Amino acid sequence: MSPVRNARVVYKEVPEGFPIPGKTFVYDDSQTIDLENVPLNGGVLFKVLVVSVDPYMRRKMQDPSVDFHLGLFKVGEPLYNFSVSKVVRSENPALKEGDHIYGVFRQTAHHAWMEYAHPYSKKGDVAFVTAASGAVGAIVVQLAKADGLKVIASAGSDEKCEFVRSLGADVVFNYKTTSTREVLKKEGPVQMYAQRLAFPRSPTRSYWDNVGGESLDAALEWAAQKAHFVICGMISNYNTGEPYNVKNLQQVVWREITFHGFLVTSLWPKYDEEFNRMFPPRVASGELKYKDDLVRGLENAGQALVNVLSGTNFGKCSVVVADE
Amino acid sequence: MSPVRNARVVYKEVPEGFPIPGKTFVYDDSQTIDLENVPLNGGVLFKVLVVSVDPYMRRKMQDPSVDFHLGLFKVGEPLYNFSVSKVVRSENPALKEGDHIYGVFRQTAHHAWMEYAHPYSKKGDVAFVTAASGAVGAIVVQLAKADGLKVIASAGSDEKCEFVRSLGADVVFNYKTTSTREVLKKEGPVQMYAQRLAFPRSPTRSYWDNVGGESLDAALEWAAQKAHFVICGMISNYNTGEPYNVKNLQQVVWREITFHGFLVTSLWPKYDEEFNRMFPPRVASGELKYKDDLVRGLENAGQALVNVLSGTNFGKCSVVVADE
Repeated sequence: MSPVRNARVVYKEVPEGFPIPGKTFVYDDSQTIDLENVPLNGGVLFKVLVVSVDPYMRRKMQDPSVDFHLGLFKVGEPLYNFSVSKVVRSENPALKEGDHIYGVFRQTAHHAWMEYAHPYSKKGDVAFVTAASGAVGAIVVQLAKADGLKVIASAGSDEKCEFVRSLGADVVFNYKTTSTREVLKKEGPVQMYAQRLAFPRSPTRSYWDNVGGESLDAALEWAAQKAHFVICGMISNYNTGEPYNVKNLQQVVWREITFHGFLVTSLWPKYDEEFNRMFPPRVASGELKYKDDLVRGLENAGQALVNVLSGTNFGKCSVVVADE
Repeated sequence: MSPVRNARVVYKEVPEGFPIPGKTFVYDDSQTIDLENVPLNGGVLFKVLVVSVDPYMRRKMQDPSVDFHLGLFKVGEPLYNFSVSKVVRSENPALKEGDHIYGVFRQTAHHAWMEYAHPYSKKGDVAFVTAASGAVGAIVVQLAKADGLKVIASAGSDEKCEFVRSLGADVVFNYKTTSTREVLKKEGPVQMYAQRLAFPRSPTRSYWDNVGGESLDAALEWAAQKAHFVICGMISNYNTGEPYNVKNLQQVVWREITFHGFLVTSLWPKYDEEFNRMFPPRVASGELKYKDDLVRGLENAGQALVNVLSGTNFGKCSVVVADE
């Protein structure tokens, strides 16, 4: 068998604002790999089938002087993220040809809900979930309903709202056409708030600019006493420009609010076993719903990431690199 | 015995920015009271000896439409706060003439430290305490040292810093002349942060304007992973003007920070018994130090409150109304 294509998306430079495919990163299919003869040195050769595309990847594109817990992408090297892959060859006895391995992302919602929301929730409490049609939000809505909460949910289009309604949310609104403050004033106060803490700035996408900050501000304004704010580790963040000015932060004191900032990596040891036992069957049976947003071809991965950062995706975004 | 003076400080109008004695509230000694003959209807007649003066009182001076957990002062009625008082006459069998009753304030530091800091602290961790010469801060410094922490502390004058150093703090600086960011960069990262969350605005007191926001921003910038931020319920807040724009709030996610917003009232049931048993002996023995800032005469109570709000007091401020 002759060498085959071994394509990559190479990180080229630290972006200002939104990454630009072809500039921030380029698709490069110039390399090949000899699957039969490449030395493994006791390791494993994988074929990547599906790669997850997640907002936190933007955080890894920063000046090397920035200290980030999970490490930064390095200029000149390929982007990487969690994937489903198939073992092509193996010199490791734990894995054999044809095995599939994976990293699961939807656990962010599960782990965070179990750690920060479930212990503080009681039937009838009000939860407010932003980005509710997304990879994390859609599962949070369903976990909140399962705990007996009244769920207020926001999303960025009428189509997304329709999907969120089908998940069982009680109050669903399009935050681009409806005032978050007015909805929370009417339907709150909010005991439980879950969102991606997003303060992105872009001169060309005004609807997206302030949604994180404005939602947080509205939630602070209409928070219940002793509310819990679960601030998800997936964030769209830009190096340039002033962040949104959160005006109601002092409500942290007056309403005795707890902020739970977290990265899901810290919760893996505590919740992975339960998640792997309980969650896949609930998804397989259709009890838990979610939406896949599949993009075909690694050459489209850069645009897929931009879509995720700008909110034009719908559901959990993954790039299908190969079917088998 | 003829009727005696029964002075009050009457709340006159909702202030914009700093309250103004003589305008926001006025001292009124026109009323008298007949101590021997005033009907008690089964109640108790107290003589107030000492009244506490605390920043949170500003929060009670707002438009009546504002919903505040602890209630607002009412225009036309006297200001009130915790005090030490003596029983003059009593028709309640639980209290007899000459008894002293009191509300203790220094428990804010104790209760909050026990609930939000002690369980997460380990020897050698770094704590950063702002307003460290104040009623709450001075005790926090000593509790942190007792737990084996390295304590970085800031205060607003060299004299105050000297006092904080005498409490055992490891690194003490005047935030008006030294950059908080630079100190934390050198001495951090910060695992535990305790401050009054203050975002006041006043065009005439620029040094005070941003100290709350800037300290918080610096602490977020130099926070350790999984840091705990204890946000104290005593706050200087103004209705007018934009609040300080906290630029590093996204570190809540990346550093996995927990914000503990609280009002000490919620912690009373859990910690009062222990506090009342353990704390007064430690203060009486001199093991725990603090600084009193006593202002004599109820007619000076208004200015005392302004001093507390602007940081020109030094230590725990109380008004001595009468010696006996």
